[in-house]
Amino acid sequence: MNKRIILTGDRPTGPLHLGHFVGSLKNRVKLQHENTQYIMIADAQALTDHADRPQIVRQNVESVLLDYLSVGIDPDISTIFIQSKVPEVFELTSYFLNLVTINRLKHNPTVKAEIKQKHIEEATPAGFVVYPVSQAADITAFKANLVPVGEDQLPMIEQTTELVRKFNRTYKCKVLVEPEAMVPKIARLPGTDGGAKMGKTLNNAIYLSDPLNVLEKKVKKMYTDPGHLRIEDPGKVEGNPVFTYLDVFGTDLEKIAELKAHYQKGGLADSIVKKYLLEVLVAFLEPVWKKRKEVEASILPMELLKKGSEKARERASLTLKEVKEAMHLNYF
Amino acid sequence: MNKRIILTGDRPTGPLHLGHFVGSLKNRVKLQHENTQYIMIADAQALTDHADRPQIVRQNVESVLLDYLSVGIDPDISTIFIQSKVPEVFELTSYFLNLVTINRLKHNPTVKAEIKQKHIEEATPAGFVVYPVSQAADITAFKANLVPVGEDQLPMIEQTTELVRKFNRTYKCKVLVEPEAMVPKIARLPGTDGGAKMGKTLNNAIYLSDPLNVLEKKVKKMYTDPGHLRIEDPGKVEGNPVFTYLDVFGTDLEKIAELKAHYQKGGLADSIVKKYLLEVLVAFLEPVWKKRKEVEASILPMELLKKGSEKARERASLTLKEVKEAMHLNYF
Repeated sequence: MNKRIILTGDRPTGPLHLGHFVGSLKNRVKLQHENTQYIMIADAQALTDHADRPQIVRQNVESVLLDYLSVGIDPDISTIFIQSKVPEVFELTSYFLNLVTINRLKHNPTVKAEIKQKHIEEATPAGFVVYPVSQAADITAFKANLVPVGEDQLPMIEQTTELVRKFNRTYKCKVLVEPEAMVPKIARLPGTDGGAKMGKTLNNAIYLSDPLNVLEKKVKKMYTDPGHLRIEDPGKVEGNPVFTYLDVFGTDLEKIAELKAHYQKGGLADSIVKKYLLEVLVAFLEPVWKKRKEVEASILPMELLKKGSEKARERASLTLKEVKEAMHLNYF
Repeated sequence: MNKRIILTGDRPTGPLHLGHFVGSLKNRVKLQHENTQYIMIADAQALTDHADRPQIVRQNVESVLLDYLSVGIDPDISTIFIQSKVPEVFELTSYFLNLVTINRLKHNPTVKAEIKQKHIEEATPAGFVVYPVSQAADITAFKANLVPVGEDQLPMIEQTTELVRKFNRTYKCKVLVEPEAMVPKIARLPGTDGGAKMGKTLNNAIYLSDPLNVLEKKVKKMYTDPGHLRIEDPGKVEGNPVFTYLDVFGTDLEKIAELKAHYQKGGLADSIVKKYLLEVLVAFLEPVWKKRKEVEASILPMELLKKGSEKARERASLTLKEVKEAMHLNYF
């Protein structure tokens, strides 16, 4: 099988949660063995909408790293790095900005949706409008040909492909590589509130680093079927995040099928199902907690990130050198 | 007197002409003795509207350097560097982009006027819209407190000042320095065609590197007073570029005053005035040509630019370090 180059990563704006695990981390743990995987902690990208809260970004760089390691991402085979420590991506971004019109960027569906969601229509930072270009620079700097993304991020990959083609055509070269998007089967885990997406800012997330007592509280408070008022009432399983989580994290499929049937018929208390979900989540999270403790005791996070960033920078420098040769900017 | 830090420079999109000399080069030769002067050959900025013609940019980097040296800019006291060889400015640009809204940039009067002039309304490259931010990065990277600009460029300095204030306020620091604009008295030399401005793309320029025979032809073809049909007709001195050039480059004020009076009265042929202008321009350009020859024989342009770029990069790195400390991005 051909080894592929993967670029993936996260904005360090908060700790990672179960939604991240399902949507991407799980995949990365698997993919790292068969591919060359670069994982970027995107501090500079986080600043595009956190410019006035750099401390948040700073604090979460380390916590995101610990989240990675706790779920089994292996820093010896995946290259984990900090975006701002690979400044070649900033230079590449500048050159790419000349190859795309501002009108094209304004009509990027992902950016448009995010601007609406964040209510920053009138005061959109320029950095936020151009972040697809910065993402294209991140991807191409590593010559990544596989980029795992959620469905809502597909326009970002399209933008990158466009830029790659435009660059290679304009500078009559084959320096840059077109990426392929990889959309995971389960892209989204609902929030504990039943909302469509678990999110850092939505107050509906179970974090990988939540201690047992917090996990207990969050499970106890979970949204279920609002029509399931008395124990003997029939309850709904669809759209009930307690059952969705059981489907995703449970291993005893028979038991889960029984619980579902019982719940739908009536006579099964939410508290019983939640108690079982807690067991399931603890079984899933216990090795994560254990690994986190081990890691915290054995590594210096910044040392590890320094090493990863140096390795990533080496790769990005090579690409930038080729890019500048193609652009006739190779003076000395 | 306090030494000030100056940032100035040119887009290497063509050789420099008499208009550049009058509007900026002359000033730089004077200013370099009393100040710390950084002169940037803005290749990356040139690419914002020359992305598909990088060879032009590349070729002119060297010719612009020779133009500088030929008029007396001293590379031992002025730091002459290539923009793309100081990549710190790209990183700084990325951080600044988060501190300004896209709406603000779209309403920058200089950019608006240039977009109109270049007829790129529908297809404005994103890099062109954000180039005031990149200019702010150039200026602040050197902590320049004095920036010589034409009047039409004043909104750029305003934009920089805004960004400096926003940065220092947002990150609660005093790292960045507000620049002051310095508008030269004679900002614009008319073109040989009588147009308001001598311009590379207007086909109305006398270049510092034009050889004598080209200079002769250009002077001979110069626009004068279109009402001055017969020698005995009275002619106009105002708006007549031949007399404007005499005012700017001539030294024999008495003779010029006599010529003007004679021309206005009638009886003075254009050819006579042009012959005198040629003498005046040759007297001005001869030392420039001589210096150019000397320089071409004695220096390696790329060696000189390498040295200058390294020195400039040292200064910009220090600023970027402070910037990243203020932004909490100082990991290791």
